[in-house]
Amino acid sequence: MTHASNPEAGFRTETDSMGEVQVPPDRLWGAQTQRSRVNFPIGVERFRFGRPVIRALGILKKAAALANAELGQLPREKADLIVRAAGEVIDGQWDAEFPLVVFQTGSGTQTNMNANEVIANRAIQIAGGQLGSKKPVHPNDDVNHSQSSNDTFPTAMHIAAVEVISGVTVPAVRELRDTLEERARLFGQIVMVGRTHLQDATPVTLGQVIGGWVAQLDDAVATLEHAVKGLLRLAIGGTAVGTGLNAHPAFGDTAARYIAQETGKPFVSAPNKFAALSAHDDLVNASAALRTLAGALMKIANDVRWYACGPRAGFAELRIPENEPGSSIMPGKVNPTQSEAMTMVAVQVFGNDAAVAFAGSQGNFQLNVYKPVMVHNVLESAELIADACRAFDEHCARGIEPNEERIRDHLDNSLMLVTALNPHIGYEKSAKIAMTAYRENTTLREAALKLGHVTGEQFDEWVRAEEMTGPKP
Amino acid sequence: MTHASNPEAGFRTETDSMGEVQVPPDRLWGAQTQRSRVNFPIGVERFRFGRPVIRALGILKKAAALANAELGQLPREKADLIVRAAGEVIDGQWDAEFPLVVFQTGSGTQTNMNANEVIANRAIQIAGGQLGSKKPVHPNDDVNHSQSSNDTFPTAMHIAAVEVISGVTVPAVRELRDTLEERARLFGQIVMVGRTHLQDATPVTLGQVIGGWVAQLDDAVATLEHAVKGLLRLAIGGTAVGTGLNAHPAFGDTAARYIAQETGKPFVSAPNKFAALSAHDDLVNASAALRTLAGALMKIANDVRWYACGPRAGFAELRIPENEPGSSIMPGKVNPTQSEAMTMVAVQVFGNDAAVAFAGSQGNFQLNVYKPVMVHNVLESAELIADACRAFDEHCARGIEPNEERIRDHLDNSLMLVTALNPHIGYEKSAKIAMTAYRENTTLREAALKLGHVTGEQFDEWVRAEEMTGPKP
Amino acid sequence: MTHASNPEAGFRTETDSMGEVQVPPDRLWGAQTQRSRVNFPIGVERFRFGRPVIRALGILKKAAALANAELGQLPREKADLIVRAAGEVIDGQWDAEFPLVVFQTGSGTQTNMNANEVIANRAIQIAGGQLGSKKPVHPNDDVNHSQSSNDTFPTAMHIAAVEVISGVTVPAVRELRDTLEERARLFGQIVMVGRTHLQDATPVTLGQVIGGWVAQLDDAVATLEHAVKGLLRLAIGGTAVGTGLNAHPAFGDTAARYIAQETGKPFVSAPNKFAALSAHDDLVNASAALRTLAGALMKIANDVRWYACGPRAGFAELRIPENEPGSSIMPGKVNPTQSEAMTMVAVQVFGNDAAVAFAGSQGNFQLNVYKPVMVHNVLESAELIADACRAFDEHCARGIEPNEERIRDHLDNSLMLVTALNPHIGYEKSAKIAMTAYRENTTLREAALKLGHVTGEQFDEWVRAEEMTGPKP
Amino acid sequence: MTHASNPEAGFRTETDSMGEVQVPPDRLWGAQTQRSRVNFPIGVERFRFGRPVIRALGILKKAAALANAELGQLPREKADLIVRAAGEVIDGQWDAEFPLVVFQTGSGTQTNMNANEVIANRAIQIAGGQLGSKKPVHPNDDVNHSQSSNDTFPTAMHIAAVEVISGVTVPAVRELRDTLEERARLFGQIVMVGRTHLQDATPVTLGQVIGGWVAQLDDAVATLEHAVKGLLRLAIGGTAVGTGLNAHPAFGDTAARYIAQETGKPFVSAPNKFAALSAHDDLVNASAALRTLAGALMKIANDVRWYACGPRAGFAELRIPENEPGSSIMPGKVNPTQSEAMTMVAVQVFGNDAAVAFAGSQGNFQLNVYKPVMVHNVLESAELIADACRAFDEHCARGIEPNEERIRDHLDNSLMLVTALNPHIGYEKSAKIAMTAYRENTTLREAALKLGHVTGEQFDEWVRAEEMTGPKP
Repeated sequence: MTHASNPEAGFRTETDSMGEVQVPPDRLWGAQTQRSRVNFPIGVERFRFGRPVIRALGILKKAAALANAELGQLPREKADLIVRAAGEVIDGQWDAEFPLVVFQTGSGTQTNMNANEVIANRAIQIAGGQLGSKKPVHPNDDVNHSQSSNDTFPTAMHIAAVEVISGVTVPAVRELRDTLEERARLFGQIVMVGRTHLQDATPVTLGQVIGGWVAQLDDAVATLEHAVKGLLRLAIGGTAVGTGLNAHPAFGDTAARYIAQETGKPFVSAPNKFAALSAHDDLVNASAALRTLAGALMKIANDVRWYACGPRAGFAELRIPENEPGSSIMPGKVNPTQSEAMTMVAVQVFGNDAAVAFAGSQGNFQLNVYKPVMVHNVLESAELIADACRAFDEHCARGIEPNEERIRDHLDNSLMLVTALNPHIGYEKSAKIAMTAYRENTTLREAALKLGHVTGEQFDEWVRAEEMTGPKP
Repeated sequence: MTHASNPEAGFRTETDSMGEVQVPPDRLWGAQTQRSRVNFPIGVERFRFGRPVIRALGILKKAAALANAELGQLPREKADLIVRAAGEVIDGQWDAEFPLVVFQTGSGTQTNMNANEVIANRAIQIAGGQLGSKKPVHPNDDVNHSQSSNDTFPTAMHIAAVEVISGVTVPAVRELRDTLEERARLFGQIVMVGRTHLQDATPVTLGQVIGGWVAQLDDAVATLEHAVKGLLRLAIGGTAVGTGLNAHPAFGDTAARYIAQETGKPFVSAPNKFAALSAHDDLVNASAALRTLAGALMKIANDVRWYACGPRAGFAELRIPENEPGSSIMPGKVNPTQSEAMTMVAVQVFGNDAAVAFAGSQGNFQLNVYKPVMVHNVLESAELIADACRAFDEHCARGIEPNEERIRDHLDNSLMLVTALNPHIGYEKSAKIAMTAYRENTTLREAALKLGHVTGEQFDEWVRAEEMTGPKP
Repeated sequence: MTHASNPEAGFRTETDSMGEVQVPPDRLWGAQTQRSRVNFPIGVERFRFGRPVIRALGILKKAAALANAELGQLPREKADLIVRAAGEVIDGQWDAEFPLVVFQTGSGTQTNMNANEVIANRAIQIAGGQLGSKKPVHPNDDVNHSQSSNDTFPTAMHIAAVEVISGVTVPAVRELRDTLEERARLFGQIVMVGRTHLQDATPVTLGQVIGGWVAQLDDAVATLEHAVKGLLRLAIGGTAVGTGLNAHPAFGDTAARYIAQETGKPFVSAPNKFAALSAHDDLVNASAALRTLAGALMKIANDVRWYACGPRAGFAELRIPENEPGSSIMPGKVNPTQSEAMTMVAVQVFGNDAAVAFAGSQGNFQLNVYKPVMVHNVLESAELIADACRAFDEHCARGIEPNEERIRDHLDNSLMLVTALNPHIGYEKSAKIAMTAYRENTTLREAALKLGHVTGEQFDEWVRAEEMTGPKP
Repeated sequence: MTHASNPEAGFRTETDSMGEVQVPPDRLWGAQTQRSRVNFPIGVERFRFGRPVIRALGILKKAAALANAELGQLPREKADLIVRAAGEVIDGQWDAEFPLVVFQTGSGTQTNMNANEVIANRAIQIAGGQLGSKKPVHPNDDVNHSQSSNDTFPTAMHIAAVEVISGVTVPAVRELRDTLEERARLFGQIVMVGRTHLQDATPVTLGQVIGGWVAQLDDAVATLEHAVKGLLRLAIGGTAVGTGLNAHPAFGDTAARYIAQETGKPFVSAPNKFAALSAHDDLVNASAALRTLAGALMKIANDVRWYACGPRAGFAELRIPENEPGSSIMPGKVNPTQSEAMTMVAVQVFGNDAAVAFAGSQGNFQLNVYKPVMVHNVLESAELIADACRAFDEHCARGIEPNEERIRDHLDNSLMLVTALNPHIGYEKSAKIAMTAYRENTTLREAALKLGHVTGEQFDEWVRAEEMTGPKP
């Protein structure tokens, strides 16, 4: 009896086409998972597949069972058992049964088999059978029916990426964006020195500044959502090489329909399965969209910390929340730690994206064998951005306040406002006022009065920064 | 007379706000262009802005003049002169007057001024005036009217990128794609060994293989065209910091309308000018789309050279045109040089994209000062891909031929076909046949007959690779 | 009493300069660690600092205490307590007390404080004091004495990187290299078809092929070891901005000496502390060296899988161990999974390196605030390469075997050998033989005999591939 | 007569092993060059090989001829002709005869043949022969004697890279470094606010700040020079696959000796030719060293522009030369254009490096066919850095001046100096002074006097920023 267990001896015997393997007795995984654990002890602490991929495999296996049943490829009772077991995988009850890491077979075969083995054994448990017996549910013949690793794993990759990006990343970015929009609204009337080339320039409102950040985030989210559309196309139905050999012609469409039902996302069967197995350009695009978003967040986080730098010898035009001790003796030294975390996340996302794009270019013939490393990096980037946006939102953005006194001082001192005098006293006198103020280190007003070109009342009436923050009709 | 020329002495005097500069007497450029030449002798051989950017500046300046005239900001006669001069710039008559390189002011100010100076001086010539006199057309006050470098240069960037990507890159890719589709159609019935993990797998048709390439290119072009949509939004109207100060409120929309008219592309004024000046996420997205395309081309070019490798000790399933001497004595050694050029272009595009994304993340406050390097790399990638696709199409793709004898040999030898016997003689006997063939280094047919499990007629009837290239109903 | 604990209520009160914080009662960490946990819930599952950084902090804190004592900056008894507690941290007893993640303050301040707090509280425990009382050992005044986060964290970064690269990565690569060298020796006499441009070329020995891999690894290890030299220079002694304010002038050198003693590596105090705090070019160099190594491993792993591809319709010149089921019915389909894992690790290392170099360029003024993300990626790359080399060595390289029959077939069939006939029958006849063999799909020998230019004996005497694998004297 | 010219008809007939080709009559190049021009019209404006590669090919061909003559492989008279013609190529007389671009055969074969053809035809001219006749000097049999493209092109790559990096890049960086060191010396005593996390911190001297930059450059140059050492190893002698077939066993060493003689650099024959042809890790390392240098330059250029930002509402602690008009009306708005050019060069170098490393990983079997794109990017990076350093040196660094008034103001206003009072009045009173100054927006001195904790004399005696810029004994 090949599936003999020997719990007292501390193991259970599982089999695959290569023969017998000893597995920890209480584990649901089988022979192929166990082989992978032994053969790929690479990055075991950080690179185990996590919730999103496990859940996606559960969704896929459930949908496949339903499709097989609907198409008469699997008895309804078997399908029901698989559906129940896969449902528990979806819900996260068996995450500990997925011990494999990213750096394994490049098709993700071993993680697909991990799912097959766990679901089969769990179904066997539910049916009152014996673990490892493959009866009444066989990991290959039943759970993997009409499938190959080569189409299931990329299908799971897309499901996981869509769920994380749409369900986690986008909402987190939107929350931050809403906070910023509210800040932009609150501070919409505060006029400040604009800066180009890092140099003082004509004025802007703080609302315009923050509004520019919001616009970047809006665009980045739209780009990300467009990328998600590409991910809605699933490889399922292609089986081993894209031809669909051994699957019912309707299997891909049917399984995709069940996946759409389970996730609430409009997944479909990919129009070309050969491309879907041998390339993952949709994931490359998603990674690129995450990179654009990271670039936008980097710009925003950098602006925040530069505007907040000081307290004395910097711009100091914004105040940000003090979340940790900066300097015990120096009040006002608030290190912009949320900006630092955010920009570090941004460079990580850039790095992850470089790995994804490289991997995406390396397909050969009918298969790209960099699947696990691609999905890993996309998910990591999507999750890091979400985490960082939430932290930045809660611990920084919501507390951003203008340092109005400083902003006003800078504006009043700005030489750029002299352009407002042009229409009244001409370019030449205006330039002389600016030059005088610059040389003598005074304000424009002081210089203007000193030179006698305008009265104080005239200056105050004519030089109004707030009127310089938009086009003139 | 400040604009005195001294052609005999070999120079003309031009002025800007910093004073006088000596310019070659026959040149249309002025003081600021000349200063930039002196200050930025960086990469002068390879990094001069080329046709697309010069043309885009001409289009922009023409549109600005028309918009200014329409909005009553510039006398119609001045506008007409500018339009004529700019028209000549558009047509490429004055490319030699644009000597500046990418590595200059990060806002592209100097190239914007180059355009202003050339167009002003050319307009002066047309009007019979004196070069450098700034009469009757002033480079700043007239040609640059209602504009700032900070909104004009990114506008020109978008115009140039759209024209090159839509007008050059996409058509070139499409031509290659059409050639491949034709090949796929021609060879649609040829059945060959599929390969996953580089290993022999179940059969595919050559049409399916090439069809997968076509699908990748179709998707990549769609991604690129979506990215172009973002580029249709122009910074024009934002002036120096995004507020539109010194421009008529309708200037951005009006200028964009004229640009759309000139180019035949639906350009519009960007909804948020602060984002449009301080970030260039649309260019980052376009660069990413070019990278995805490059990744797809890399996969295709790699497949072609691997399928063609041999002539004896490789796959040798495809024949490609012999364009250059491979080995003088060895017939059949055809080096896949077009694949080599294509994959080198692909890695260059990956590198260019890394530069673009990095630059795109580095904006501060109201300006990103990496504009020239961003547009340079996007255009270079777009042009290289176009060139490489055309060369690959003409000198390789059109001549791809199947080596049918070799393909058939591989297929007949394949052990993977044994699966077709399963329904007839069962898994166990089938596996035994395969094992025998593998060990004794014979074909499946030979092994099957030897073992006596099937007759020759049965084998030929049951084992049909062509029936394994699709799902079974 | 501010350090009151309330274990029944489930917490202990810790304080820092911002006030009180509640900490889990049995934890050794203090207020600042706790604040960081709350403020930076970013990537908590995958991005906690691990063994190498914790150990490095322990080494650093022990060395600092010894240096402080030696220089009269700290009473010997306090130093002894710190040394004991730090020793336990070095040994790994308190890893669970380091809960913080990479994405925190960019200076690593919070992890430095985590170390200070854990070591202080552990020292207090050893001394019989009360957790959180800061008596008799204060986390800032004593454990962090003469230090700032800004010099301690980069010091720990270097210690960790040196220990992992020298102690883990290099030995793992060397083991693989030794295995390969042994294979090269074993198969040194096997002559096979050389391949350039993927095309058949003049012959090489398998020993030469594998010897090329060994040479690449040797060079890559030498590059890595040179990079490690840069990492031996420690920031310690620079304190907050590089000036060494608040530290004894001899503190940096003394601490470095103790670190060298503890690790057995010749660490020294960095010659310029301003560069050591505001830039991390030594880490960038180390990351680049890891990338070069990854590139070499990618080339090797790719060669292995291409040489092994088949079993029938590929090169199939090498056999690799079968570690997992490939195809249940098709014998000989051995997926090159170790190559797949290795190349996925390589692309990950490339991505990590992109993040490191980007981060390294972003320093401002007296500090680079991307420290944690830099060290994280360098360590991850170093560890992944080590893991992958060990797996590849054990599960693949050691079992690489030539498929001599196939190698010989390819060689005998090769048209390239015809060049050996040149000296005997002239170029023209030789070329005719090759062309005949190519067109008629026969061997050179058959064609030569058919054409009558040589006898069988002559052919066998003159055409000897093994004599074509080296220069002729 | 196969080499018939027909200048009247506008062409000359050249031949190669594929047959006849028509070449412009006055050109020295031959059939293979001409074929490449037709087949690879990719990036023709920007990607032609330039001076360094052409010169390197001249050096190589001269050395090969001398080595062949010395080893008795070529008649002395032929060698002399080749040496003369190659000498002219070295000197740059025939650059226009090298029309080929980077994106060609991945081995660089066509550019190697371009050199062979030009040198042969030029030698024929010198000897009074007929262009294209291949008499008395044959491009393959004589100029390329003992060589293959596969070992010559990588040899030329190394020669070119060494000459540019050592002869152009390093000197340019050193000049900038010397300027900065002189600035550091000049301003060594100026004490200013230090900044960490962008926030005010304890003081540093301007000399220390600039000294940190110098240290970074020194380290980067040392790294680059170490990388050059790897490039001194030449592939020459490996011929087609690394075995050295068809070359005299001493050819590699002898040719390398002549190359060393010609260049004055200690070139040697590479110890392992198989690695030298199939991988280019030495170039990858050189590219990485250029990237580290670019990262250092980015940090420096960023510091310069941030320190110089203002004139009013920024740090404004440094003044930089005004090279171009900033704002016509606003004095003091000096755009940091040299910093902008430098940082754009830096991102370009990062991008180029990504391409190089990617390409370097893609070798297969006995050849890496990304040679041209690798050397192109390394040379471009090396040249851009040199150009940018020279421009930055001349137009920015030499003119950097401290704005002493501003620096002093910031320092006097800094709250960080309060730490100097600790030893005299205790932590608590010091902190109260700082808090008062912060809240009431006064200087520390004002607050201290107001609170009555110190006298003015005491404050001035105790609070001395200059004493805070180093460790205390």
